[in-house]
Amino acid sequence: MTAGAHTPQIAVFDSGVGGLTVARAIHERLPWCDLRYLGDTARLPYGTKSAATVLRYAVQVADALVAGAGKIDVLVVACNTASACALPTLRQRHACPVLGVIEPGAERAIATTRSRHVGVIGTERTIASGAYQQAIGARAPDVHVHALATPLLAALAEEGWFDHPATDAALDAYLRPFLAQPATATIDTLVLGCTHYPVFKTALGRALGRFLDHEVALVDSADAIAEEVAGVIDDAGHAPSRPGRIALYATDVGERFDRVGRYFFPTTDVVIEAIDL
Amino acid sequence: MTAGAHTPQIAVFDSGVGGLTVARAIHERLPWCDLRYLGDTARLPYGTKSAATVLRYAVQVADALVAGAGKIDVLVVACNTASACALPTLRQRHACPVLGVIEPGAERAIATTRSRHVGVIGTERTIASGAYQQAIGARAPDVHVHALATPLLAALAEEGWFDHPATDAALDAYLRPFLAQPATATIDTLVLGCTHYPVFKTALGRALGRFLDHEVALVDSADAIAEEVAGVIDDAGHAPSRPGRIALYATDVGERFDRVGRYFFPTTDVVIEAIDL
Repeated sequence: MTAGAHTPQIAVFDSGVGGLTVARAIHERLPWCDLRYLGDTARLPYGTKSAATVLRYAVQVADALVAGAGKIDVLVVACNTASACALPTLRQRHACPVLGVIEPGAERAIATTRSRHVGVIGTERTIASGAYQQAIGARAPDVHVHALATPLLAALAEEGWFDHPATDAALDAYLRPFLAQPATATIDTLVLGCTHYPVFKTALGRALGRFLDHEVALVDSADAIAEEVAGVIDDAGHAPSRPGRIALYATDVGERFDRVGRYFFPTTDVVIEAIDL
Repeated sequence: MTAGAHTPQIAVFDSGVGGLTVARAIHERLPWCDLRYLGDTARLPYGTKSAATVLRYAVQVADALVAGAGKIDVLVVACNTASACALPTLRQRHACPVLGVIEPGAERAIATTRSRHVGVIGTERTIASGAYQQAIGARAPDVHVHALATPLLAALAEEGWFDHPATDAALDAYLRPFLAQPATATIDTLVLGCTHYPVFKTALGRALGRFLDHEVALVDSADAIAEEVAGVIDDAGHAPSRPGRIALYATDVGERFDRVGRYFFPTTDVVIEAIDL
């Protein structure tokens, strides 16, 4: 990297802390880039709200995140619900590339499935938007998508009940009727359509094992999106001269955001600040 | 009621739909009064957010609710978290009486308990505020208050899982360690410190029966607050000449708010509208 060269600037936002899984995957893939993250913790969750409200909030959050920075090289919508509701509008408003989490997840699911039956779980709003159904259908019309809203899972993740009897009972209540149908019983790939859900990989594996007698691959879009970001950032010839700066912002900064933020970036100097919206 | 007499105007707000239980209890007690309700459904829940954010939102919501009306006779904060964080500020800002749900619940608990050990369950923010502990301690210093945050219950209520294995598992996880302590085992009264919780009366009764071998009275503040409102409204000589008008507003109006609103006021003409904040 030549002296005075531009350090790539990556901006990431989410409704809360779930998108930190995405931010961490991007930082691990591109450790020399500066990264700004904004979690709209004052107004979370997005997943139970109307499409119009989610669009309004996503536009405000993206504007605030970009306003405080210089040139942004890529804006990442690290929230499935916001990706489902706001991506076209955000692409009109911002000059830089705007990446959502749904397209990378859809592509990975298509590449993974052999039975050509893919399940998707997500928030009420993400599933109702049909975004995964459209993203997969446009790329692989032969793949059948079976979508299921699992609204309580985000709250269980926020509670820290990753492996807990209440989580098992909730997964049972959601998956038992869903997988009892002949078509869904052939699912061999399940997209975790919410950035909170990777914490449930163990509990989900156990629940799927109760209802199906074949393996089901779990698709987590955090890794997929990190690859997409690397493709957008022109990293040819960039020698990592210094570690990228991490700045974490939230609309409601509290003990929880502080703790979770430092958990995800333990070895890095992290700035944590509030932004009022 | 003489011709041209003022129809009492009651304003009620909550973070979402939980406060409709309070609004209905007030309407049943004072059916000739006009009632305006605003649920901040775009930004719910309040219970997991910081005191500063809850205060800011409660002030905005109360201002918006009162701004659209003529003279308001009483403003009711039908949300435990907002009552815990915003009551003094709201009393400074509004000329009318401002009633919260915590004081009536505290008074009813004091009148009910014989063992002088009272339990309170509520959101993280309500419990952390110490509002119930202070309200009970100021009125009855001999009563011991045992407070427990049960953050997932509001999400379980929103999901409609009133009587469900996931709810049983959550109540088990919260109550088993709480009631295993010698002091809490003498609780004979449990305050439902969130307007969502009355839907769990059956499940709570069952859970308490698993851990305690004596009866526990459940205190629901909706009825208590309706009596307080009746005491503030001067109803001497008021013959109910016509049923009061009900107007329900929300910051995010969707199918759910519409359905729940009509469920609570099925026999009344109800206006349901969105307010942008």
